[in-house]
Amino acid sequence: MILTLAGGVGAARFLEGLVQVAPVETITGVVNTGDDFELHGLWISPDCDIVTCTLAGLIDQVQGWGITGDSDACMEWLGKLGGPTWFKLGDRDLALHIRRTALLRGGATLSTVAESFRKALGCPIRIVPMSDDPAPTHIVTNAGEMHFEEYFVQRRAADTVLDVRLHAAGSAERRRGWLEAIASAEAILIAPSNPVVSVGPILALAGIRKALRESPARVVAVSPIVGGAAIKGPAVPLMRAVGIEPSALGVARAYSDVLDGIVIDQVDADLAAPIGELGIQVAVTDTIMRGPAEKAALARTALELARSHNG
Amino acid sequence: MILTLAGGVGAARFLEGLVQVAPVETITGVVNTGDDFELHGLWISPDCDIVTCTLAGLIDQVQGWGITGDSDACMEWLGKLGGPTWFKLGDRDLALHIRRTALLRGGATLSTVAESFRKALGCPIRIVPMSDDPAPTHIVTNAGEMHFEEYFVQRRAADTVLDVRLHAAGSAERRRGWLEAIASAEAILIAPSNPVVSVGPILALAGIRKALRESPARVVAVSPIVGGAAIKGPAVPLMRAVGIEPSALGVARAYSDVLDGIVIDQVDADLAAPIGELGIQVAVTDTIMRGPAEKAALARTALELARSHNG
Repeated sequence: MILTLAGGVGAARFLEGLVQVAPVETITGVVNTGDDFELHGLWISPDCDIVTCTLAGLIDQVQGWGITGDSDACMEWLGKLGGPTWFKLGDRDLALHIRRTALLRGGATLSTVAESFRKALGCPIRIVPMSDDPAPTHIVTNAGEMHFEEYFVQRRAADTVLDVRLHAAGSAERRRGWLEAIASAEAILIAPSNPVVSVGPILALAGIRKALRESPARVVAVSPIVGGAAIKGPAVPLMRAVGIEPSALGVARAYSDVLDGIVIDQVDADLAAPIGELGIQVAVTDTIMRGPAEKAALARTALELARSHNG
Repeated sequence: MILTLAGGVGAARFLEGLVQVAPVETITGVVNTGDDFELHGLWISPDCDIVTCTLAGLIDQVQGWGITGDSDACMEWLGKLGGPTWFKLGDRDLALHIRRTALLRGGATLSTVAESFRKALGCPIRIVPMSDDPAPTHIVTNAGEMHFEEYFVQRRAADTVLDVRLHAAGSAERRRGWLEAIASAEAILIAPSNPVVSVGPILALAGIRKALRESPARVVAVSPIVGGAAIKGPAVPLMRAVGIEPSALGVARAYSDVLDGIVIDQVDADLAAPIGELGIQVAVTDTIMRGPAEKAALARTALELARSHNG
C-alpha cells in the first residue's frame, strides 16, 4: 500500500499523477481535516472533498477547486436570508456538506462518510480523514486567533500571522484507523501541500511521527516550496510564523525526523547539498504540475525515491 | 388585527386575496406546522414557507408551489450521495431549510425564524407558526403509521387512511405567542385549507378552541370542499377517516363549536340551509380562486361576513 499524506489542491494534483503510475487499489490518501469547520450548521471538510472530487474528475480544472458546472442558487438565497456568504458553496458542493452532516448526526464517522462519498462519486483511491474527531487548525494573528478558513478565506490571509495552533493534535487520534497502516505501507509519500496547515496537522496527531520513524517504508516528501515561494496559498507567512524557513530546505528540516527522501524543484538544485547533509536523499526534477504528464512524472519520481533502498 | 388560520397552498392563495382588501399590517397568518419534518438533517416547514414565499411573490404560479426559477442541482447530488430524493427541494428552497436549521440549532424559535424570513423575502404580512414546538401530524394507514409528508408525498397518498394523529397537540402550546392575539383580533378567518391536516393541528392545540369560542371577534371559515371534492390535495380520504363528511356541511360541523360564519361555493348552495341550522351564518359565492380578482372577492366576502354583526 502507498500512503499519501495530503492537504487539498496540491495533494489532489499530485494524487492525479500517482494514480497514473501505481494501481489505484494500492493508494490511500490520508487527508488533513484541520481545515474542517461548521458553517450554516453544516460540516465542511474542504480537503477531503477537494481530493475526493478531483480524483473523481469532478473539479473545475481551471480554478482547481469547485465542482465542474456548479451553480450558486442556494448560496445567493442563504445570503438573502442573512447567512454568511464569505465561504462560497456551490449547489452540488452543498449536497456533500448536507449529506455529510446528516450522516455524522446519525452516528457515522468522517471515515465512513469519506468512504461512502468516494464510492458514490467515483474516486478510485481510498480517502481516509486524518482523524474522526475535530482537530481545528487555528491561526493566531495580529487581529486575534481564528480558524484557518476564517484567516484564509474570510479575511483573505491579510492579517499578520503570529502563530499556528493545532488544537486537538494530542487527542485527535481516537478512532483513527490508519496509524497501523503506516507500519505495513510499502511507501509513504507526503504530497506537495502546505507543511504548516495541511501536513502539519497530520504529523501533529499523537503517535504519527513515531510511527513514521519506525515504519519499514521509506517516507518521501515533495516540496511545495519552489524557489522560495509557495506554488499556491499562504505557505510562506505561515512557515515563517512557526519558524520554518520558506524554502525546500525549510520543508526538509520540518520533516527531517521522519523523512528519508525529498523531491525538490530544479530551480532549488543548490539546496540538494544542504538537504543531503540532514541525511535526507534528494531527487531534483520539475515539480510544477502543469498537466497529466507532469503529474505522472512527479509521482513516479517520488515513488521511485521511496522505493529505492539506499539513501 | 385579522388573524387567519392557514395551511399551505390554499391558504396562501386566500391570503393573496386578503392583502388586496385589508391593510397588510393588520394581517397575521397563523400557519400549520404539523407538516414540518426533518429530512437530510434539515428542518422543513412546508406550510410556513409556501405562505411566506407566495405572499412575497416568489412562488411558481403555474404549479402553485416551488420557488420561481428554482433549480435542482443540490438535490441531484444528494441523490448521488445516497440521500432520500422523494421530497423535492430546489436549490433556493434548500437555503430556507439550511438557514432555518442553523438558526434553530443556535437557539432561535420557529417564530423568530418565520419573522426573519418574511422580512428578508418581502412577505408583507406577519407569519406566525402555530407552535414553536414540534407537533407532527401522523397518518395511520393500512401500511402503518407515518408522518403526513411520507403519506402524502413519498407514498403519493396511495394508502388507505384509517386515522389521523396530531401528536403534540396537547403540549405544543409552549412559547406560542398568538393565543392572546385571538382575544384582541378584529376578525378571525379560517383559510380554505384541509380541515384535518392543515387547520386540524392548529385547532387541536391546547386552549385554542376555547379562546376562539370566547373571542369577541367572529370566526369565519372558507370551505375548501366544493361539490364534495377538495380543490387540491387529499382532504376527502382524510376527512372520511376521522368521520367528517367530505362536504361544506362536514367542514361546518367540524368547526361548529368555534364558527360564526362560513363561505361556501355556489355549487353547494343547497347546503346553506342545513349549515344555517347549526347556528352558522352562510355566505354563498364563487370560491374557486382563478386569479387576483377572484382571490380578492373571496377574501372580501369572508371578511365582510366576519365583520357583520349578526348571524
